[in-house]
Amino acid sequence: RYGYFGKNPTVVKLLVCTIDGCLTDGRVYVNQEHELISYSLRDVDGIRMLLDKDVNVRFISERDISPSLVSNLNLPCLIKANVSHKKEAVEQWMDELGLSSWSQVAYMGCSYSDVECLKLAGTCGVPADACTAAKMTDSFVCQHGGGYGAIQEFADHIITLLETGR
Amino acid sequence: RYGYFGKNPTVVKLLVCTIDGCLTDGRVYVNQEHELISYSLRDVDGIRMLLDKDVNVRFISERDISPSLVSNLNLPCLIKANVSHKKEAVEQWMDELGLSSWSQVAYMGCSYSDVECLKLAGTCGVPADACTAAKMTDSFVCQHGGGYGAIQEFADHIITLLETGR
Amino acid sequence: RYGYFGKNPTVVKLLVCTIDGCLTDGRVYVNQEHELISYSLRDVDGIRMLLDKDVNVRFISERDISPSLVSNLNLPCLIKANVSHKKEAVEQWMDELGLSSWSQVAYMGCSYSDVECLKLAGTCGVPADACTAAKMTDSFVCQHGGGYGAIQEFADHIITLLETGR
Amino acid sequence: RYGYFGKNPTVVKLLVCTIDGCLTDGRVYVNQEHELISYSLRDVDGIRMLLDKDVNVRFISERDISPSLVSNLNLPCLIKANVSHKKEAVEQWMDELGLSSWSQVAYMGCSYSDVECLKLAGTCGVPADACTAAKMTDSFVCQHGGGYGAIQEFADHIITLLETGR
Repeated sequence: RYGYFGKNPTVVKLLVCTIDGCLTDGRVYVNQEHELISYSLRDVDGIRMLLDKDVNVRFISERDISPSLVSNLNLPCLIKANVSHKKEAVEQWMDELGLSSWSQVAYMGCSYSDVECLKLAGTCGVPADACTAAKMTDSFVCQHGGGYGAIQEFADHIITLLETGR
Repeated sequence: RYGYFGKNPTVVKLLVCTIDGCLTDGRVYVNQEHELISYSLRDVDGIRMLLDKDVNVRFISERDISPSLVSNLNLPCLIKANVSHKKEAVEQWMDELGLSSWSQVAYMGCSYSDVECLKLAGTCGVPADACTAAKMTDSFVCQHGGGYGAIQEFADHIITLLETGR
Repeated sequence: RYGYFGKNPTVVKLLVCTIDGCLTDGRVYVNQEHELISYSLRDVDGIRMLLDKDVNVRFISERDISPSLVSNLNLPCLIKANVSHKKEAVEQWMDELGLSSWSQVAYMGCSYSDVECLKLAGTCGVPADACTAAKMTDSFVCQHGGGYGAIQEFADHIITLLETGR
Repeated sequence: RYGYFGKNPTVVKLLVCTIDGCLTDGRVYVNQEHELISYSLRDVDGIRMLLDKDVNVRFISERDISPSLVSNLNLPCLIKANVSHKKEAVEQWMDELGLSSWSQVAYMGCSYSDVECLKLAGTCGVPADACTAAKMTDSFVCQHGGGYGAIQEFADHIITLLETGR
């Protein structure tokens, strides 16, 4: 947990984070009517810390999460569900925000579908319980699992990099 | 966790898995109107990996799970609830799929009612928290508990057996 | 965990168990409309094992659990909520079942309000996470916490006592 | 965990405790319609013990928790949600109860927004999983995490201080 994780962290302008397994612990609760997912208020603290440092924070999911559930998550940032190509979604956001290079992007993911973005992003992180392929991307590996403070920990890491200018 | 678990794994055509305690952690949440159960998206990844290798995946439960809850589970495979004889249910599926022998079947279970099928199946697995009788069936014992990645782990095991042709 | 826990276990005719912290893990989930509690299907297996041995199993709670929630628990045994005096409730059941002595009763509890019954019952057990006062009653202390298999473990203990005639 | 935590504990007249991360474990469950939070009945036992000793117990949250959810929590004490300045909220309660000094107040919190009150209160406590800034306030650090008995543990601590007159 020492050393340098990421390629050009001093210019992080956007953090993109996967919902399933990073914001949540990957658990889906189901009853006859609804689907229920959960997140930790600690991670919301981490998101707020990044927003205070003018880092954009956005969430993506490959799953078809209903708009009303997305809205009920009540997060202070943009969420895009039903994403089939995560790389394309991130690059669309980069265009929108005028970011020319992946070196300005921080990415947090945990599953096979996150590996491509983890390799491209200037700063990358995975929860403690990410899949092996995601962990093998030279990412910052959090001590906390997804849904239990991994985002706050990665946010702390990004802010330290920003402040030390490494 | 070394060695050979199963009798003829190279021909696995069907994985049958118990819902209660394998797909879920055996926990039932109840309120005045509904019952709620939960599973992990990691295990869904494992299911998808097997489907990609042309292994049929099906779920059974002895419980009377409502059709709307079954449908809300939103799994990419067939589910049969309210099963009183698990062995009969599996053999009906074997007929339907044209499988002549239990050696072509992989089975994952965790409770007393799974012991018979665990002994018959060519490849068998149990979550870390299975009951003792289920663990005593010479099954592959996962490091993960039911509902927390046991299916993904067993899927990895099956795929390794398929690929190494053991 | 060796030795003799209880005073005359060979005649157990009734197990009374507290819902809050024994059947459940003591957690209450609340939203704008409902209260949600959870239990483990493992413990239901334990209850079934006792019923097969002709031991009555009944649950009590001091809490005002709604009748519809009680009914949705879907347990194969009688449940009495809103009990202010647990000892009286148990003795009413003893009368009803024609049991003349507490030595024929097994009791499982975890909180201050269970101490009196734990001391009276012929066979007594507490989950691993019971309060200190409950643990100090010379009870069988389960390795599992409430809501996570403690009842199944205590049921195993009772059956062993019944079968060895100790 | 030895020694003296707090400045004048013998006069504790009011315990104020943060909901998010102290009463609950900081987890928010969300579906298309509702938000769900959870707490432990053990902590309710702790609250009752303090009420029996004539200590007022009150809860605050910065979050906009709906009145119906607050009411469903069914706690035997006053709850104030949507609090933007925790210190002001506590001081308003102090006025209302005729308490002239923070030395008569016990405070339990876990996040950045609790640090100010933790430093002011005569007796202060944090759950095991509080943020570092909250832990650095010379508070009693519970062995239990928020939502899993931290309040009961802090209540025990307060009662011990009251009884030993320290």
